[in-house]
Amino acid sequence: MSYIIGIDIGGTKTSVSIGTARGKILSRRVFPTEKVEPTLAEVKGCIRSYLKKYAKGLKKVKGIGISCAGPMDPERGILINPPNMPTWRNVPLKRIFVRSFRFPVAMDNDANCAALAEKTFGAGRDVQDLFYYTVSTGIGGGLVIEGKVHRGASFDAGEIGHSVILPEGPRCNCGKRGCLEALASGTAIARVAREKVKESSLILKLAGGKKKDINAVFVAQAAAKGDKLARAIYAQAAFYLGLSVTNVIQIVNPEMIVIGGGVSFAGPILFQPLIKTVRAHAWPRPYHSCKIAPAKLKEKAGDLGAISLFLKELDLGRV
Amino acid sequence: MSYIIGIDIGGTKTSVSIGTARGKILSRRVFPTEKVEPTLAEVKGCIRSYLKKYAKGLKKVKGIGISCAGPMDPERGILINPPNMPTWRNVPLKRIFVRSFRFPVAMDNDANCAALAEKTFGAGRDVQDLFYYTVSTGIGGGLVIEGKVHRGASFDAGEIGHSVILPEGPRCNCGKRGCLEALASGTAIARVAREKVKESSLILKLAGGKKKDINAVFVAQAAAKGDKLARAIYAQAAFYLGLSVTNVIQIVNPEMIVIGGGVSFAGPILFQPLIKTVRAHAWPRPYHSCKIAPAKLKEKAGDLGAISLFLKELDLGRV
Repeated sequence: MSYIIGIDIGGTKTSVSIGTARGKILSRRVFPTEKVEPTLAEVKGCIRSYLKKYAKGLKKVKGIGISCAGPMDPERGILINPPNMPTWRNVPLKRIFVRSFRFPVAMDNDANCAALAEKTFGAGRDVQDLFYYTVSTGIGGGLVIEGKVHRGASFDAGEIGHSVILPEGPRCNCGKRGCLEALASGTAIARVAREKVKESSLILKLAGGKKKDINAVFVAQAAAKGDKLARAIYAQAAFYLGLSVTNVIQIVNPEMIVIGGGVSFAGPILFQPLIKTVRAHAWPRPYHSCKIAPAKLKEKAGDLGAISLFLKELDLGRV
Repeated sequence: MSYIIGIDIGGTKTSVSIGTARGKILSRRVFPTEKVEPTLAEVKGCIRSYLKKYAKGLKKVKGIGISCAGPMDPERGILINPPNMPTWRNVPLKRIFVRSFRFPVAMDNDANCAALAEKTFGAGRDVQDLFYYTVSTGIGGGLVIEGKVHRGASFDAGEIGHSVILPEGPRCNCGKRGCLEALASGTAIARVAREKVKESSLILKLAGGKKKDINAVFVAQAAAKGDKLARAIYAQAAFYLGLSVTNVIQIVNPEMIVIGGGVSFAGPILFQPLIKTVRAHAWPRPYHSCKIAPAKLKEKAGDLGAISLFLKELDLGRV
């Protein structure tokens, strides 16, 4: 039995795990993401303790996979300037871990890793081509073609949150109008809810009566209890997400679309209107060839993303 | 020196050519596409005459490539039901030519073949990943990844004409609203021109004074002569095409976007506003990594598409 170390560095928290090539996580630690030095010191401490406990030396650990918010250069292993981690600039993560542990190291952005994790261990185990959406505070994605991540010319493939869905639509954080992220992310759902709630609304009640505290989770909870406004807000987000899925089906014609991220956990409230939209807009043949499925791995996507990435890069002879 | 036969079956005309593996066409014949039997008889006659003239028997011809309007099953080699060729239903083209000539036969839809031709012999010779648009009466496309056509789960990848660009936009021939084809095809350009021309318009003059005779070529001619309305109509089509290109860049992040088809022959009138739109909407990094170029092969796209398809399928061991 051999093991793989998975590192998942996010804007608020970092996790370090050790797992098997079959996707079983043996141990996992999570701590807040701080500045570069203290965070990496803690990551290294975790790895050392795993090596002691599980690997009895170096023999049984094959290497390290790193999943992190982009933009990055995954080939050179350099994190460039993730918008939610302003102190992490041009960090040569790959080199740092290679030097510390003498293991091969693979690295990619979080959405690509999660896409590969769903292909390797999750909803997409039986397919070769899939597109993965992560619908959360923002919207990201990853394109898997013939079983491997398609990174693209500048490693930006899958950045579907900033494809344009409604040319004259609401302003996005990126400065443009009508990006998918401005229409269907958790942030967009909360914004629409704040605009539309009335005094008596269940959404407002769940948020403790404070408009500014409304978030997508409260909207999902209200929708689950049958609140009409909350359902309409989710249905609208699902409509725009459905147009985006339609476009991916028309352009890539994948075997599967996997939808993950916090907003997707709302379940049928999101998926029913989404699938209805895709059925109405995509061509019948590619629509019927494409399964639209919720992500399976949920909170494990980061750890298993890092691990599946390492396994795939090893398989491709790139680490 | 060995030769390849290329067959390009279109809605109005069929061409049969013989060329080299370097993309040199030695001979080419074109005739109207009729019903299945007489058309295929004429194709076979052409092939026999090429075999006599160039190949001195069977030895020097490697095989046959077929480019045809879809939908089709390219693996089984069956043309299913192309909308503009209503008498061609479930035609087992591959089997027919294999039986007649004992050559290996490869087959794919016209847009995929043209995409591969641009990669092999045209604008995309130096890249591995590209997306090809054909903007003509309708809009089609082909996705080339790692040097080969990505066909998709039901062979419908690249059908970008029916991606949704403007959810509440004009009605498309397919029945939906706001498809790219309803906004930026030659048909859409002509429709907008017919709606907007006034008595004194140059577009109307070029069309012989008859609104119903206005087509995209007259609009392009008027635009080339500086006609403001014609330029505005082209710029609007280019804007929507630019949003579509933006989405392809955000989803696939290709090294190159190649734009072909009759509408693209208008040149800067189309490309200038198109590139401006993409620059304004796509992320800088994938935008700067993607060359947006006009197709090089133009009227040779069909013949070289069929030939490049055969060469690639031979290379992949699939014929």
